[in-house]
Amino acid sequence: MAILFRPFLPIDKTHWIPLLQQELKDLDFRVWPNIGDPADITYYMGWEVFEGDIDAYPNLHAFLSLRAGVERFIGNPNFPRNAKLIRMIDPGLTESMVEYVISYVMRFHREHDKMPEYLEPPWGRLLPKRAGATSVGLMGMGHIGQSCAQKLVSLGFHVQGWSQSKKNIDGVKSFAGHSELDTFLSSTDILVCILPLTPQTSGILNKDLFYKLPKGAAIINVARGKHLIEEDLVSAIQDGQIGVAALDVFRKEPLPKDHPFQNIDLILTTPHIAGITSPDTAVPVMRKTITDIESGHLPDGLVDIEKGY
Amino acid sequence: MAILFRPFLPIDKTHWIPLLQQELKDLDFRVWPNIGDPADITYYMGWEVFEGDIDAYPNLHAFLSLRAGVERFIGNPNFPRNAKLIRMIDPGLTESMVEYVISYVMRFHREHDKMPEYLEPPWGRLLPKRAGATSVGLMGMGHIGQSCAQKLVSLGFHVQGWSQSKKNIDGVKSFAGHSELDTFLSSTDILVCILPLTPQTSGILNKDLFYKLPKGAAIINVARGKHLIEEDLVSAIQDGQIGVAALDVFRKEPLPKDHPFQNIDLILTTPHIAGITSPDTAVPVMRKTITDIESGHLPDGLVDIEKGY
Repeated sequence: MAILFRPFLPIDKTHWIPLLQQELKDLDFRVWPNIGDPADITYYMGWEVFEGDIDAYPNLHAFLSLRAGVERFIGNPNFPRNAKLIRMIDPGLTESMVEYVISYVMRFHREHDKMPEYLEPPWGRLLPKRAGATSVGLMGMGHIGQSCAQKLVSLGFHVQGWSQSKKNIDGVKSFAGHSELDTFLSSTDILVCILPLTPQTSGILNKDLFYKLPKGAAIINVARGKHLIEEDLVSAIQDGQIGVAALDVFRKEPLPKDHPFQNIDLILTTPHIAGITSPDTAVPVMRKTITDIESGHLPDGLVDIEKGY
Repeated sequence: MAILFRPFLPIDKTHWIPLLQQELKDLDFRVWPNIGDPADITYYMGWEVFEGDIDAYPNLHAFLSLRAGVERFIGNPNFPRNAKLIRMIDPGLTESMVEYVISYVMRFHREHDKMPEYLEPPWGRLLPKRAGATSVGLMGMGHIGQSCAQKLVSLGFHVQGWSQSKKNIDGVKSFAGHSELDTFLSSTDILVCILPLTPQTSGILNKDLFYKLPKGAAIINVARGKHLIEEDLVSAIQDGQIGVAALDVFRKEPLPKDHPFQNIDLILTTPHIAGITSPDTAVPVMRKTITDIESGHLPDGLVDIEKGY
């Protein structure tokens, strides 16, 4: 039994590897490319699966994704449909995502990006809309979506969620499936996309969807760049159907300097920093996943490969 | 016994007067200038006291301020030192203020205004700082300050407050008085000013104070324009001592178009919209104040005129 870590990001060397070495010091922990005998490798930890890794380890028990979204494993056509794949459920990443969502939800709710319009007399003296009068619609009600929902409820917002199956969360109105999408959208002032990327959700943030929201609605995308048809957002912002958007993810990252988003004030972009798996909180989770699998328990985050999450 | 309302803002006619007429329909409610016999007037409700109002009503029981801050009553040198003055404690205003503070605290904590610096490779992939690693320092721990503190604690921030006297609030470190100010400042990453405006607090946000904060600290002022020495903030931003600021109040409002703040990206301004007394929640409070005074009870919000709040 050996665990192979596949480095990919600069923080792997500075953060991940030292913490994993410490946490797994009683186990055989190896860092690619120092694989040793491939037949030893039972766990593969990484941000994605690389060519050459898929079939290289004949005794592999599981792939442990460092990301919450696993499309860079499943999306590979050679990825074995019967593999055990665990997505990351990291409390640190969840906390970061929730913070990001609260930041932009509050900013859009209070219209801080429309302030120049209010600078003419009578200056100020508006009655601000309070949270209970703003409806936040979360698309995707997995672990992160539910955490966002709970915090937004505690801040007084009207919160509703849309997901594959109905969810029962205190104070959150649940919509499920294609048939309830239009009703969900028509009553959403601020839409937050936290969906997994699957063939069904790819491109879901498109012109059709935008025009089912109330005029002037806000969009926040913290999921994946491919959820959004980028040119549709540009048009919807230009004609005022979408009032403002915050995007953390893009089809091409880094966002090219000549991308239309770079010159539209009401499209706020951040460089994929809403949430990233945090080694301090995630390493203990990975330890537990291995322990669970080794003792024959079902680990948290086991992916249904057909559903894609 | 009669209640006189002194209109001042456009929303008085559209919001305040109709709601007050409804709430006080069993009482003698009058709207200036239709005063009737000045000797009838026992309560004066208004945003401030106007010349001619101070001595006009020989049987006045109390001034009821529509604002949380009462410097526009007390600041008038003719305002009687023995008058009963009630400041507004409005749950609606508190909620709005808390929302505003959360919006900018979260935005500054997550450095959303520094994103351009992060656009060079390696793009993104930073480990975001989580709320527990950011210290929010609230100057002013009255009703609004305490409400901000509680919500910020629930969002995971390290929260500390500075006030005249020590406060005992779950999860909030309390500093009091001049002697503890420097320690409070040196451990504050994001400073929020919610102080009442008094001769002691006027100009408190100045160069001296800025340089006692950690380099790059953020400032949020939702109190009064006169708390801030505006030119000191410009210099402190220019040399990086203050990283970013959100200001809702100014020495001159509306903020003049040629004011230096208008051209500094890291000074974010809003037109005095952080919180305003909200008639729907405040009118019942005013009713209760009158009932309390009429039945000989001490009303909430009774101002200590010497202290100024």
